[in-house]
Amino acid sequence: MANTETYISMDKELLEEELNSLLARYEDYKAQGLKLNMARGKPAPEQLDLSNALLDILPSDTTPLDSFGEDTRNYGNLTGIPEAKKLMGDIMGVPANEVLVSNNSSLNLMYDAVARSMLVGVNGFTPWSKLESVKFLCPAPGYDRHFAITQSFGINNIEIEMMSNGPDMSVVEHLVNTDPSVKGIWCVPKYANPLGITYSDEIVRRFAALKPAAGDFKIYWDNAYAVHDLEEPGDELLDLREACIETGKPNMYYMFSSTSKITFAGGGISALSASGENLAEIVKTMSFQTVGADKVNQLRQVAFLRDLDGVREHMRKHAALLAPKFRVVLDTLERELGNLGIATWTKPRGGYFISFDGLSGTAMRTVELAKRVGVVLTDAGATFPYGSEQMNKNIRIAPSYPSIEELVVASEIFCVCARIAAIESIMSRRSRRKDIVQMVKA
Amino acid sequence: MANTETYISMDKELLEEELNSLLARYEDYKAQGLKLNMARGKPAPEQLDLSNALLDILPSDTTPLDSFGEDTRNYGNLTGIPEAKKLMGDIMGVPANEVLVSNNSSLNLMYDAVARSMLVGVNGFTPWSKLESVKFLCPAPGYDRHFAITQSFGINNIEIEMMSNGPDMSVVEHLVNTDPSVKGIWCVPKYANPLGITYSDEIVRRFAALKPAAGDFKIYWDNAYAVHDLEEPGDELLDLREACIETGKPNMYYMFSSTSKITFAGGGISALSASGENLAEIVKTMSFQTVGADKVNQLRQVAFLRDLDGVREHMRKHAALLAPKFRVVLDTLERELGNLGIATWTKPRGGYFISFDGLSGTAMRTVELAKRVGVVLTDAGATFPYGSEQMNKNIRIAPSYPSIEELVVASEIFCVCARIAAIESIMSRRSRRKDIVQMVKA
Repeated sequence: MANTETYISMDKELLEEELNSLLARYEDYKAQGLKLNMARGKPAPEQLDLSNALLDILPSDTTPLDSFGEDTRNYGNLTGIPEAKKLMGDIMGVPANEVLVSNNSSLNLMYDAVARSMLVGVNGFTPWSKLESVKFLCPAPGYDRHFAITQSFGINNIEIEMMSNGPDMSVVEHLVNTDPSVKGIWCVPKYANPLGITYSDEIVRRFAALKPAAGDFKIYWDNAYAVHDLEEPGDELLDLREACIETGKPNMYYMFSSTSKITFAGGGISALSASGENLAEIVKTMSFQTVGADKVNQLRQVAFLRDLDGVREHMRKHAALLAPKFRVVLDTLERELGNLGIATWTKPRGGYFISFDGLSGTAMRTVELAKRVGVVLTDAGATFPYGSEQMNKNIRIAPSYPSIEELVVASEIFCVCARIAAIESIMSRRSRRKDIVQMVKA
Repeated sequence: MANTETYISMDKELLEEELNSLLARYEDYKAQGLKLNMARGKPAPEQLDLSNALLDILPSDTTPLDSFGEDTRNYGNLTGIPEAKKLMGDIMGVPANEVLVSNNSSLNLMYDAVARSMLVGVNGFTPWSKLESVKFLCPAPGYDRHFAITQSFGINNIEIEMMSNGPDMSVVEHLVNTDPSVKGIWCVPKYANPLGITYSDEIVRRFAALKPAAGDFKIYWDNAYAVHDLEEPGDELLDLREACIETGKPNMYYMFSSTSKITFAGGGISALSASGENLAEIVKTMSFQTVGADKVNQLRQVAFLRDLDGVREHMRKHAALLAPKFRVVLDTLERELGNLGIATWTKPRGGYFISFDGLSGTAMRTVELAKRVGVVLTDAGATFPYGSEQMNKNIRIAPSYPSIEELVVASEIFCVCARIAAIESIMSRRSRRKDIVQMVKA
């Protein structure tokens, strides 16, 4: 049954009727004792299975040497094995000699980069721990774990509005170019978490053209979804490195990526790319921290993925599993919410999330309702600095982990909850308005 | 030819004759254009081969689940998989629930522990980065990478003399118990790097009985060689955890270990153990840093080593490869230097090093002479805070990596260099003395 009338235009009786019918559906779901999760961007088991060959790809009867003939099992080689640098460089679109390959977590590389800036200082500037005020810009909705890193160090997270083509650059430019306490900005430039958008060429160029008031300002460019297309051809992201070299600011960014959502989520390899000068500085500090990462796993990943073509071929298999899941959620959203005038949502061409905007003030209620019938969603507001969205309307939907069958149910439940929350909100607003009208009359 | 006379007792002619004969040998070595390395404690390829089954031990046609049925390939489980905690706990002699298992580098765990103390603070105390003065005690000779961590943060490294049964505890007690800026001490309590000694029961008890002036003082107990015996039975190290619980100071230590020198040096797993309270605090901060370590590799290590018995059985294979190498070096030292009165050295029952003391003032010269004929040794002084030993007599010898054949040559060269350096030193002292005598006469 297609929805023909928006909730806002319905009168009291019609809305109540609608609410009752939704509550009946809601009670039905409750009775089923479900346990579904659309909260985190975890790959599904069948996606992990795509890479199971990794497990025994290195035969035990040969010595796992890297392409320089070094034994990957032993100590050494702080920046990673050459072939892993090449592969990760190709994924990020940067030269291998500007890449450091590490263990399984690119988040760890980001955390350590901030920690280093706090303790040791960057490019010869004062360690941030010695400064009165340090600010980071947080395009929101964004990745909660990014914001949590800077928050954990007491850095002031500043919310920046995300537009359809990237962060609101006029605000970014103003803050970065005038405030020396603004030391960085968190970006997921391709298939942004959770909006799914890719920064436009113009946005990337404006990033490269920043004239930071802080000499040690850095763009934290987390290219987590560099090759994670759901459709072909995928989005094209302008090369930030190239753009920064053109504007004479090669030291203005740190780039990150990993194979976490290519091979094994918890057992991939991570990479950091930066200018030669920045990388040398990072490696110098890292040399106190570790003798090097697990190079056997680096060799394993390269043996499995081979090269960028191999990666692309492999990512098409992920897309074949993921695209139908996104389809289910998007179709359900369209069927259940289309034309009701209570929600909009993104239709991403890649990445791991659908970003949902309900009526203002309804996100937390929607998440709460869903939780009560066994559907766990990302906490409302989680994708905003300090876990709180002023408008209380955005919810991140992660379709990757549940099965198609589970998604059918979970996304229907989600829609029913969003509709109930919307009606409650409209009714309460109307009744408040009525009260005010009566008060004025009285 | 056994040496019958000490160098000190030889007259000028005899010493010169000895020097000439040594220089002839030295020139012979130089002519060979050798390239040998006794500098770092790296396992030899044949030791790594012992664990090659690791490479394909997890079959690609099954899902690598941990003992709780969790998929090790996916995100999550910050503290590690249960069976890895059990195994590492058994190696360290602590309960599994007080263990955190991480990636390939225990050094990284130590670095991060210090970094956390600097930035976030420990047990509710002021972060060290906000203090005027922070000191760490460094029993020396010790592990250079320990001292480098604290040095890299600008912490004041204080040298503590190592005795035959552990650090000089009267000095440790005085400093720890009276100076609130003393925040930690670096220890390798079993088969200490480089002395090879194991702390006596009394020393461990005195550690547990410390009454630190600093409420956040920690013993950094790096049990890197917990199961690394060269002879049977191996040394027994008293249980620091138990001792600290008995003295009512369960929060006074961080314990570390790894499988780096059990399986793959660069591709093992690491572990940290601490009291429940300390561990909870660590995990809280780590939750911002990473979603978790590579659990596939944790599963792999347990699949290969099985349990503590499996570890001990495996370590006997290492000992079978290592013991003859230590033998070669020790025999050569005895043959070339015994009775000359110019050197003493340790005869370790486990671990990775032989610690050599030449005449005062000769260590750097010996290392330099060896380097010139192609034998790389650990830099003289490297095992002391700030890389400098006042007495300039200690050299760390690492026999693990070269082959037996290479060790025969390398250790002979080492001895020849030590002898040359000793004669040079004796002659120069005598001539200085003669000058003084003549000056007094004149």
